[in-house]
Amino acid sequence: MSKIELKSKILKKNESIAEDIRAELNSNGLWCMNLIGSPGSGKTTLLEKTMPLLSKKGRCGVIEGDVKTDYDMKRIAALNIPTVQIETSGSCHLSSEMIKNVLPNFSLEELDFLVIENVGNLICPVAYDLGEDQRLIVVSITEGDEKPLKYPAAFVSADVLVVTKADLEPYVDASVKKMVDNAKSINRNITVFVTSAKTGEGIDSLTGYFSEAFSAKVE
Amino acid sequence: MSKIELKSKILKKNESIAEDIRAELNSNGLWCMNLIGSPGSGKTTLLEKTMPLLSKKGRCGVIEGDVKTDYDMKRIAALNIPTVQIETSGSCHLSSEMIKNVLPNFSLEELDFLVIENVGNLICPVAYDLGEDQRLIVVSITEGDEKPLKYPAAFVSADVLVVTKADLEPYVDASVKKMVDNAKSINRNITVFVTSAKTGEGIDSLTGYFSEAFSAKVE
Repeated sequence: MSKIELKSKILKKNESIAEDIRAELNSNGLWCMNLIGSPGSGKTTLLEKTMPLLSKKGRCGVIEGDVKTDYDMKRIAALNIPTVQIETSGSCHLSSEMIKNVLPNFSLEELDFLVIENVGNLICPVAYDLGEDQRLIVVSITEGDEKPLKYPAAFVSADVLVVTKADLEPYVDASVKKMVDNAKSINRNITVFVTSAKTGEGIDSLTGYFSEAFSAKVE
Repeated sequence: MSKIELKSKILKKNESIAEDIRAELNSNGLWCMNLIGSPGSGKTTLLEKTMPLLSKKGRCGVIEGDVKTDYDMKRIAALNIPTVQIETSGSCHLSSEMIKNVLPNFSLEELDFLVIENVGNLICPVAYDLGEDQRLIVVSITEGDEKPLKYPAAFVSADVLVVTKADLEPYVDASVKKMVDNAKSINRNITVFVTSAKTGEGIDSLTGYFSEAFSAKVE
């Protein structure tokens, strides 16, 4: 079997399991978000800021994906939010099979919102559907405003872009406006939130978006 | 053929071509460095700062790897340094075969130092030897000081760690000292440079390290 044939077979299997997951989450009235971003883009911090606010509106669960360590799981679990860590031990992305294997750790019927924080990588996770309702790309302004053009697949596949660390804009050679314009040039339908965990900018708006998304599903 | 067998076959082929590249570069007295880091860690900026200084000591060439665009190549070529862009069109790492294919674009016998800037990714490029003499990991302080623990394979495989954007330390919840300590806990032999392209911190020392490395090879 060639490399391309094998990749296609793997993706097909991934897609099939992802559809099963979507059906299971749907049947429990659960809304699911897949977070993708580079290492250190601020994915976990974004969850630390939004999940406590969101917990007042509905019941949240989090799946943390990392190559190594359970640090991120501990940060979220400290907020009294049900959290499961997947350590991929080298693998560069989460797969739907990994998600399927950890779902029994949650009481799905008790949850409204499930967030999956993918492995820190702006390339490989893009090809793997995890059964999510929406996909969110996290990019910090410190990464540079041309990132949407250099990693277009991530932005094409996303429903939401969250620009993080906006408070650092004055100290770096990058413009939030340019970053957003570049993202919209790749995907004009992408919904954008500009945030700063430090100043709180955008956190309420993003939490409101999450809350509306799962409320719409439950109704 | 299973996924594991195929991966092992691909890596074996990659290794064999990498050895050929190493022999060819060696026979031309050329020293080669493979730069690995996350998207936006500051790899290209580091080259913009060091290559002009290094060009006074020897003749440099650069291979730029990106999923998409030739922006980085243009930035380096603007400094009058021979540069070739590899666009991987989706692939998450450079391979030795890609390097082999672009080497004829350089007059190897006229160069002393070849830098390969890998695709922005802290995971996948680690497994692919490109025929380099040394491997350098670039991590910005804005990515967080726990990164060596979360992506250990990159740090285990590296000879040099360059911490970038050190000028931003006061504005983020991360410590350069802790980042370095974490890296040394993974790989106690790693050589560390703490740099800031903005203030110039560490740029002379890193340039001196490159210069000594290729001078030692030529002698």
